[in-house]
Amino acid sequence: MTLSSTLQEKLKKINAEPGDTISITINDKTFTGLLMPHHQFSDPEIIIIKLDNGYNIGLRNTEQSTIELLTKRRKQGKKQQTIPFDKNKPTIDIIGTGGTIACYIDYRTGAVHPATSSEDLAFSVPEIFEICNVKTEVAYQLLSENIQPEHWQHLAEKVANALNNGAKGVVIPHGTDTMGYTAAALSFMLEDLSGPVILVGAQRSSDRPSSDAAQNLLDAVRLAAEGDIGEVVVLMHAESSDTKTAIHRGNCVRKVHTSRRDAFKSINTPPLGYIEKGKITWEKSYKKISKGPVSVDSAIETDVGLIYIYPGMKPEDIPDKKGLVLMGTGLGHTSSTILPRITELTKNGTTIVMTSQCIYGRVNMNVYSTGRDLLKAGVISAATMIPETAYVKLMWALAHGKTKEQIEILMTTYISNELPEKTK
Amino acid sequence: MTLSSTLQEKLKKINAEPGDTISITINDKTFTGLLMPHHQFSDPEIIIIKLDNGYNIGLRNTEQSTIELLTKRRKQGKKQQTIPFDKNKPTIDIIGTGGTIACYIDYRTGAVHPATSSEDLAFSVPEIFEICNVKTEVAYQLLSENIQPEHWQHLAEKVANALNNGAKGVVIPHGTDTMGYTAAALSFMLEDLSGPVILVGAQRSSDRPSSDAAQNLLDAVRLAAEGDIGEVVVLMHAESSDTKTAIHRGNCVRKVHTSRRDAFKSINTPPLGYIEKGKITWEKSYKKISKGPVSVDSAIETDVGLIYIYPGMKPEDIPDKKGLVLMGTGLGHTSSTILPRITELTKNGTTIVMTSQCIYGRVNMNVYSTGRDLLKAGVISAATMIPETAYVKLMWALAHGKTKEQIEILMTTYISNELPEKTK
Repeated sequence: MTLSSTLQEKLKKINAEPGDTISITINDKTFTGLLMPHHQFSDPEIIIIKLDNGYNIGLRNTEQSTIELLTKRRKQGKKQQTIPFDKNKPTIDIIGTGGTIACYIDYRTGAVHPATSSEDLAFSVPEIFEICNVKTEVAYQLLSENIQPEHWQHLAEKVANALNNGAKGVVIPHGTDTMGYTAAALSFMLEDLSGPVILVGAQRSSDRPSSDAAQNLLDAVRLAAEGDIGEVVVLMHAESSDTKTAIHRGNCVRKVHTSRRDAFKSINTPPLGYIEKGKITWEKSYKKISKGPVSVDSAIETDVGLIYIYPGMKPEDIPDKKGLVLMGTGLGHTSSTILPRITELTKNGTTIVMTSQCIYGRVNMNVYSTGRDLLKAGVISAATMIPETAYVKLMWALAHGKTKEQIEILMTTYISNELPEKTK
Repeated sequence: MTLSSTLQEKLKKINAEPGDTISITINDKTFTGLLMPHHQFSDPEIIIIKLDNGYNIGLRNTEQSTIELLTKRRKQGKKQQTIPFDKNKPTIDIIGTGGTIACYIDYRTGAVHPATSSEDLAFSVPEIFEICNVKTEVAYQLLSENIQPEHWQHLAEKVANALNNGAKGVVIPHGTDTMGYTAAALSFMLEDLSGPVILVGAQRSSDRPSSDAAQNLLDAVRLAAEGDIGEVVVLMHAESSDTKTAIHRGNCVRKVHTSRRDAFKSINTPPLGYIEKGKITWEKSYKKISKGPVSVDSAIETDVGLIYIYPGMKPEDIPDKKGLVLMGTGLGHTSSTILPRITELTKNGTTIVMTSQCIYGRVNMNVYSTGRDLLKAGVISAATMIPETAYVKLMWALAHGKTKEQIEILMTTYISNELPEKTK
């Protein structure tokens, strides 16, 4: 297909830039809105504008449906492109990592790719600048399924640097797939936090009418600028509607739905608090911010596995690693057919920690003979820790405990409020 | 420690048998209740009686606290030991497999062991005989963490035999740890059910005041005797209180709490119905009982693994098997670092099915590039199936599909209502 005039040519002709208000006529219909930035992965013949009602629409320029463009109003000067600074307001850092919260649809494939600038992200929610000054930085541009343990370590350094260089708080936009793992890792790696560290994501990208990106980002920024919590937290929608966002302790939270906007739930504990119409309310006690400086202790052992237990599992399905977190059945069980393998591994120095595939509730290996046999084999109970947190903590503990006993003590005592005291 | 007179000697002296009402005096306190059966694993110096209020208590005979016994009333004749028969009532089969619902505490170790007779179980809830006649059979005496795929096959045969020999319905008391897996397996293995097949368990054993064993068993029996559903279901407490029990489709249900009595939840669909004060109410449509005969098609491929995906996972952590069910992150993702391994496996003939570790929600690999890459590598979406059901179904599909295409069709179409149409 060759077009008599490509979209890019038309945009050039009217000298339109992202942020300009333009009118588009296509098939006798006219749409007016802000021209959205073009993304490297996007189809050059697709134009995206943000309508007054906040919805973004994408329109395709074809031979049959030719787009006509008209600049209505230029964006106001270059000033809007630089982040404003108000010396009476606190300054926070936004450290971008990618994910849906920073995503654009690629209209060629229909798939979503991470965007390239956390500055864009900040500008997409201009209400942020009423609260605070913003410094932005892009650490990665990754869908979170590609975030690896070395990224956690690098990110811990960046957070500490930001806080130690005067940031009031740090906001980390992150993909939701593994946001819980990253939050848990940062909670073990960072000490003496002098400001809130908030991971925030979106379940629906910002070009969808139902996007939760703007509200989550705005509330995360508010918490970073105004909060006195010295912990790593996850902030996401509390309900499927836009009523409020929830503040979850970073090592007690899990994504429990593939697509709902309130997919993140604190497990075995209520959320620490909520933000509703700009007001932060706390439901639980939390660690207050320290005077700093923030220190980083990010050593981890990566030879650790997270293994799901199931009927029909064979002894050789339990791999040979320095550490293993098992997701046992019920209160923390495995079939007795794989018990000899577990005994063999612990004898050879593998640290094995038991969690439950039930997700909710406390591991208790004292109730049934199966559990008692596992305890006898040296398996350590994760108590009320979720499997993801137990996995990250075991990586950390293996790098910090020198003896079997020290590792067990690290796994069973508080490092960073990761053990909810009561089950629901 | 030698006792001047052992408990067993004292019981012999007064000629006490399980079911007799006896009085026990210990430390000047007197307790009256039904003498409970002695279990092979139990301490011979412990006596358990069921008090009038329904609670069981266990008392230990020691040199310091000597138990004195007095028979108050003999149980009425031998008739009560055989299961009563009323030709005007339907007859159901109870096929015992073990688990908490049939458990006694071993007071020596404090641990719980499975009991030995489903007849005992039936007698422990005498209200059952007001509803129907009961035939009992013990298939296994296993804690459910030890139930293996070959037990599913054997159990399918037993269920079909029971129904084809005139049982109105079948009740299967089962440990809760893997009850969901067994229910899903039976749902694929049994066809043309001529009566309800109900798996039932207990989260608290019958010697604890908070036990859910009696109500769950009674409601399961009621559903077997009165229900017109020709499906495999799981029946458990619907709420943490005793108000009602829920009827869950056997392949859409999961244990989501280690200890709560309402630990079982239908995932991505509401329960099929409830039983409250003896009344069955249905919330969803279901398959009605057929005229039979019930047929069994229990062939499965056991070289299948259920693998949890996590950051830091290495390509070699994905094992080489005929079938793999992955519990991906979010909508069904893995890190791109393990994509080549997945591609290699599918090329070599491994069938790989994607579920989500979120548990709730639908797998959708069309949204993000990661997912599209996995689809391209030949990974099959489990859609709204929970990981446990996808695992059992893949075992079944690999034994029933001859080609890659046939297996994929089996995995993505209804065999037994295992795909909830809508996500919550």
